[in-house]
Amino acid sequence: MVPKALLFDTFGTLVDWRGSLIAQFGAWGGAGDWAGLADAWRGEYAPSMDRVRRGEEGWAPLDALHRASLARLAPRFGLSLDGAGLDRLTQFWYRLDPWSDSAPGLARLHARFITAPLSNGNVALLADLARHGGLAFDTLFGADVFQHYKPDAETYLGACRLLGLAPGEVLMCAAHNADLAAARALGLGTAFIARPAEHGPNPNKDARATGDWDYAVASVEELAAALGC
Amino acid sequence: MVPKALLFDTFGTLVDWRGSLIAQFGAWGGAGDWAGLADAWRGEYAPSMDRVRRGEEGWAPLDALHRASLARLAPRFGLSLDGAGLDRLTQFWYRLDPWSDSAPGLARLHARFITAPLSNGNVALLADLARHGGLAFDTLFGADVFQHYKPDAETYLGACRLLGLAPGEVLMCAAHNADLAAARALGLGTAFIARPAEHGPNPNKDARATGDWDYAVASVEELAAALGC
Repeated sequence: MVPKALLFDTFGTLVDWRGSLIAQFGAWGGAGDWAGLADAWRGEYAPSMDRVRRGEEGWAPLDALHRASLARLAPRFGLSLDGAGLDRLTQFWYRLDPWSDSAPGLARLHARFITAPLSNGNVALLADLARHGGLAFDTLFGADVFQHYKPDAETYLGACRLLGLAPGEVLMCAAHNADLAAARALGLGTAFIARPAEHGPNPNKDARATGDWDYAVASVEELAAALGC
Repeated sequence: MVPKALLFDTFGTLVDWRGSLIAQFGAWGGAGDWAGLADAWRGEYAPSMDRVRRGEEGWAPLDALHRASLARLAPRFGLSLDGAGLDRLTQFWYRLDPWSDSAPGLARLHARFITAPLSNGNVALLADLARHGGLAFDTLFGADVFQHYKPDAETYLGACRLLGLAPGEVLMCAAHNADLAAARALGLGTAFIARPAEHGPNPNKDARATGDWDYAVASVEELAAALGC
């Protein structure tokens, strides 16, 4: 399929959350088990969203989930954080560096297609990530636009609706097979972008495509080439 | 007030809907009362949204309201339009030219502030307008994001919420006094951008500021200068 618009998962697909968090922790706090904290924090990500998705907790944007997770985890990593400290470290998610191919690849794709993140991050966070990383987007689809987290259908179909496009005209691009499976089930096209280093030395169940996706590439630049950009 | 983000009304404030529609009608249909059609079509704009705002009609994006208005008006202007014709002329709203100062002014403002339209247009339309006119935005707030039309509070406050900002950190910029009055009542800052030529030779009740707005300027470039950009 040749799409009219491309939606991008962001954490892991476009930006290196793990390396960026570890670097910011170190610059802030000196020595520490920052890889452990980054992994534990990200480990709380899906469970915290799932509680919202199942209705066990009311809607809260990812910033609030990140902050609450950090408050629970901090003591285990020897951190004593007051409210301002929790706010400050939560803002580290606003300053994640892109993978080296993300900005140049997006620039090529943006010249020909509508591009936007479709992320569980909130719009304010995505706005900062886009500016920080020079990521070329037409608009920003954060989970707070829909008050639903992926893989809820409201996110994928909501983005298609706002773009005025049928699902079959939209390509979901992600480094995570489950994200693409949810998108495909709703009729969107699918592009797998391999990010085997997302979890550093830890196991990565998404190191390679496990589905027969419409595209399977190793970078955003390779996706641009595959789409003739 | 010095804001963190600027929201822009779009039709009339950033783009010349009237001149652009007349030009497209002429290129499409040759001779005709295109000024009359443009004015009549725009005349249906507020009443059609008000029916949705009052709950007399369910939510419908501006494209659908435009199309239905045109279907009612077409016979009066000697036009016989089938479904494809209605679609085509409705798309003329996707190709409105900006005022000459809009793109350079927005570029200057975008370098320092978050910028976005806050428009009664839908996101897909705004995406095309931004590309067509080279308008520098971080994201797009169309009425379909909120499923409310201005001046409903859900639009102004919804944009603030998605930006993660308090209303007092956001500047609403518009050529229409009523838009600014609604924004001010909710705590947003206000900037009036005079567009005396919006209605061509017809009367324009918004030719000048009728409120004591935080800023009152004659162009987006003048607003950029007033904000130190």
